[in-house]
Formats: sequence, structure tokens, C-alpha cells
Amino acid sequence: MAAAPSKQAYVPFVSVAHMMQLVHHIGVERFMADLAAEIEEDFRRWPLFDKTPRVASHSQVGVIELMPTSDGETYGFKYVNGHPSNMSRGLQTVTAFGLLADVATGYPLLLSEMTILTALRTASTSAMAAKWLAPKGAKTMALIGNGAQAEFQALAFKTICGIGEVRLYDIDPAATAKCARNLSGRGIEVICCTSASEAILGAQIITTVTADKQFATILTDNMVGAGVHINAVGGDCPGKTELHHDILMRSAIFVEYPPQTRIEGEIQQLAGDHPVTELWEVIAGRVPGRASAREVTLFDSVGFAIEDFSALRYVARALKDTGLCEQLDMIADPDDPRDLFGMVMRAG
Amino acid sequence: MAAAPSKQAYVPFVSVAHMMQLVHHIGVERFMADLAAEIEEDFRRWPLFDKTPRVASHSQVGVIELMPTSDGETYGFKYVNGHPSNMSRGLQTVTAFGLLADVATGYPLLLSEMTILTALRTASTSAMAAKWLAPKGAKTMALIGNGAQAEFQALAFKTICGIGEVRLYDIDPAATAKCARNLSGRGIEVICCTSASEAILGAQIITTVTADKQFATILTDNMVGAGVHINAVGGDCPGKTELHHDILMRSAIFVEYPPQTRIEGEIQQLAGDHPVTELWEVIAGRVPGRASAREVTLFDSVGFAIEDFSALRYVARALKDTGLCEQLDMIADPDDPRDLFGMVMRAG
Repeated sequence: MAAAPSKQAYVPFVSVAHMMQLVHHIGVERFMADLAAEIEEDFRRWPLFDKTPRVASHSQVGVIELMPTSDGETYGFKYVNGHPSNMSRGLQTVTAFGLLADVATGYPLLLSEMTILTALRTASTSAMAAKWLAPKGAKTMALIGNGAQAEFQALAFKTICGIGEVRLYDIDPAATAKCARNLSGRGIEVICCTSASEAILGAQIITTVTADKQFATILTDNMVGAGVHINAVGGDCPGKTELHHDILMRSAIFVEYPPQTRIEGEIQQLAGDHPVTELWEVIAGRVPGRASAREVTLFDSVGFAIEDFSALRYVARALKDTGLCEQLDMIADPDDPRDLFGMVMRAG
Repeated sequence: MAAAPSKQAYVPFVSVAHMMQLVHHIGVERFMADLAAEIEEDFRRWPLFDKTPRVASHSQVGVIELMPTSDGETYGFKYVNGHPSNMSRGLQTVTAFGLLADVATGYPLLLSEMTILTALRTASTSAMAAKWLAPKGAKTMALIGNGAQAEFQALAFKTICGIGEVRLYDIDPAATAKCARNLSGRGIEVICCTSASEAILGAQIITTVTADKQFATILTDNMVGAGVHINAVGGDCPGKTELHHDILMRSAIFVEYPPQTRIEGEIQQLAGDHPVTELWEVIAGRVPGRASAREVTLFDSVGFAIEDFSALRYVARALKDTGLCEQLDMIADPDDPRDLFGMVMRAG
């Protein structure tokens, strides 16, 4: 038999079960607050990162994407799919996993489930952006679309932005009931609504997080009053939008990475040179965020690789001394690196 | 506690140890012959595949790449690094892993180590190409560069092309000695040489598989006689070539995917419109391969995503009923796909 591989040949792997345990170990709200801080730090040093629009493989029923980035020391990527039709088969619309690697050697450092982690980082990113863009003192959020992402959004906005009331609406009342049930007893007032118009009553923040792959109009122009912040999460691939064009025309639009958002976000409805502001520039203090109390701000969020990178790095750090990972024998490690063949043969 | 995840939530994982056992279970030569047939089949249906140059993240010491492709039913990608300086740290220059997924759902089907598998598929691809391009009746191969890929090349050419003699040369005699030792008793005559010029004596096929990231000249023009087939494996990224420009000018050049090879292959030394032939067109019977017994043919191989796809699919099939994999809990699988949050909370 071959000698046991060296320590470097093993890659720590965070399974779904371990990720859930890690969330409970830290607490779901604190997890999202910590993660928002981690993402914010990386937005501050945004120019440092390698950036590329995600690498997408489209089919008639969905998309599979790779989202790589690097800060020069650490490399990360996420594998993620988007298959709206999965729900009717009892499968997740979005599943994901990701990896961190050492730029100096190319060796993997961490492999992790990211279905749960993506849900957490998406909500953390939304709430972090709202902290910079929403009107001061916002207390009420409309939450339109009550699927897999909804509770994470509600709790992230509670913890990070101080939201005290969420007004739920979904075309399927069962989704709203599920969301309300999950949020009960968590220190946030939950109002179940029967229309989008009812949900937005009195809301300073409107979050749209629906899942249909079609040009939808979850919000029409007359529904959006002065001073509102819109957190548009569900429009995140070509052909999938949630907001009426006229809302976009009178909003100050903030995005993650324009080359990607122009393909995937709400602004795919606009001319390619329509002015947008990169969120990182607001956070880094280079440009102002919200200009006035009456301005409509829009975070046209599609999810960017750097947020996943931040999330994986946070998990790698949070894991320490918890034992919440396995060691995968994923890297071939011959004693003599030129003797890969000999290693294979000696294993016989 | 939450219910156990469904079967679909588990992803079969082939570790390094399991891959080595699979190679022994099948036999290394038969593995490479089967794999060459699998790759050849995919070259025949080449136009079907999504093709893109690999997605590279370069640093001063190396590169990390993602290589995705899809045939419309199955999606695959490989993560691979290239760090020539790793060898001096006792690490592999190239490590890799890969994944297959179902295009219809986006759910992963297989995760596998690919350091060993890449070595096998690279040699299988080289020998499969030589079967189409090398002069008839070739019996002797020069093998210049005796590192981690060398033995795989020698045995693939023995099994797939009927090579009876390999003539080894490396700037480090210890590498040649290691290679000769590993090949002894395997039914192929091994000649250790002390120069590249000596290695090519009488060889109908010349394989170059050196690892330096620099414009090297492993072969000069006067070394290459009429009718030889050159299998250039080591020139595979920008700035890394092995052949003198003049050899390229008088060779019939065959490549995998021109947009990638023009960046990474030997032909990065040539004008962007220098004529090359895509190997798949030869295999599909669309264009002739070798034109005459005196022609110099060159397979300017850089490795393409479709070869990795073929290799992963072959492994997925070969695995059946062997038990040579683990089941990774990698995909979150709530009973109600919209109730991801509830699943996480119930795990507490």
C-alpha cells in the first residue's frame, strides 16, 4: 500500500449538515451580521479583485454558472445553478457549492456546500446595501416573493438595518404562510398580505424576490412612492426581471458589477449606457449614496463572485476549532511530485 | 433533528485513493485505451458541445483555471492549477478535480479527483491523436521531459499506437532514471539518452512534455526529419512553448480548439491567422489528416474541456458496482424546496 497522503493533500469539506450546525453554533442572525461586515470589507477593497461576469451555460430549462474571483492571495469560485422548474419536481431552484484555493500553490483550501451559504450571503448583501441606501429610520419592509430566500432577507434586515415589521406577499398564499410561520417568535412583526399593493403600504423598503424566469412586473410605477428603497433580488438572469421600466427611469440605481448586471439585472431593460453607480464606490466613500430623503434608490442585485468569496473566507475562519468539517482526499500527493505514476502503481 | 437528506442530495465523490483503486481494477493500459475511445467519440460529435477558452486567473507564480463544457444533457467542468514552482516545494505542478452535473436540473452527478485522471486523459488524447496523424507503422517514440506525465504517455502510445521503444531524455537524469524504472517490465523497450538529439534518433514520433514556464526550445528545426509526428504536450500556457518557430512553419498543425490554442499552444508564436486544422474534423472524416509519408505533423495539444468531460463520464460509468466512491452531503434538500430556512432551523 502507498503511504498515507500528507496533510496538504486533504481539503476541508463543509457538508450541508455541518453548515447547518455552524449556523446554529453562531446563531443565524449573528452569522448574517458578521457576513455582512465581511462582505462590506471586501467591497471597500473592490478594485483589488479579479472580476469577470459569471461563466454561464444556458439550457432551455435553466443555467449552470461558475463565478470565480481572486484577491491575489486567495482564489475562490462558486458553482451555482438556476432552474425555476426544479420547484415543481421537489428540487431546489438554486443549489451551489464553492471552493477557496491558495493563489501561491493552486492547492484547494476549502470546499463547502453553498446552497445555504448563498441564501445567507444574498440576504447579508441586500441588508448591507440597504444600510447605505435606504432612508434613515426605515422600520417597515415589504417582502414580495416568500420562497426560499424570504426568511433570510427578513432576519438580515431586522439585524442589520433595524427593520421591525415585514409585510409578506406571494402569489401562492401557502408560501406566505410558510414564511410567516418560520418568522414567528423571532422579534419581528409579520403582516400577511393578499396583494403586492397591500404589502407595500407604509413600507420604506421594498424587497422583491420572486423566482419566475420571465419578464414579470412585480412592481408598477404607481406603487413606488418617494423616498423608498427597492431591493430587487429576483431579477438575476437574462429574461428575468421584476420591475416596470418606468420605475428604473426615476430611480438612482446601484449595482454590484455593471458588466454582469447589464446582462442579468433589472437594467437589462435599459440602454447599455444608462447611468448606474457601483455600490463599492459608495462604501469606499468615493461617491454619495442616497441623494435626498425623497429619492427612490434601487439596489439591482444579481449576486457577484466577491460576495461568495467573502462568505467562503468567513466560513473558513468560523470553522476553526469547531470540528464541523471532514477532510477530503482530493489532491494527489506523491512523495516525489514527478512520480505520480509510481504513486498510482504502488497503490495496487 | 432534521430528516435525512434524500438520495439526490448526495454527490458521489471519487477520492485519490479510490481513483487509484479504479485504475488497478481496470488496469492502467486498458483504462487509457477505453478513455481514448471515449474521447474519440466526443471529438466525433464536437460541434454539439458548448465551447469556451478556459477561464484563467493568472498570478506571478502560476495559474488557476476553470474548464467548463456541456453536450446539452450533461455539464462538466474541471478546476486545474499550473504552478511550475510547486515542484521545488514538494508539491504537484498540476492538481485538479472536476464535476459532472445534470443539465436538466443543475444537480451535481459526480465529483472526482482529477490530478491522476488528467494525467490519464492527457496521455489518452495524445495517443488517440497520433493514431490519426503519425506515420504508419511507427514503432519508436522519443519522450523528452520525463516528469509526472511521461510514463502515462509511454504506455498510452504502447497500447493505442503500438509503440515498442521509447527513448527518454530529461535535463535532470534523475527524472529519466525514475521514468525508466517505472516503465521496466511493462513490455516496452526503454532507452535512456543524455541529449534530446540522441533521444530523437530513429524516432517516428517525438513527444515533448517539459514543464518550464518560459519560451524554451526543446526541439530545433534541424532535429526534425521528414515524416515525423510531433506530440507537443508541454507548451500549454501563454509564454510556455517548446518548439522552435521554424518547425511550426513547415509542419501541418492540428489543434483541439483554435481560440484556446492560439493563446496557450505552440502556435502562440505564429500569426493569429496561420492555418491550423481542428483534430475533430479529421476524426469526423471532414478533412484529411496526414497528407503524405514525408509530411511533418504536429499535434499542438493544450488540453481541452471536452477531454475532461469524456474522462469524467467514463469514470462515472466505470465506477458502477465497484463501490469505489463516497457519498458527499453537498446539496441542501428541504422536503419543501421553498422551505430552506425551515430546514436549517429544524437542524438545530
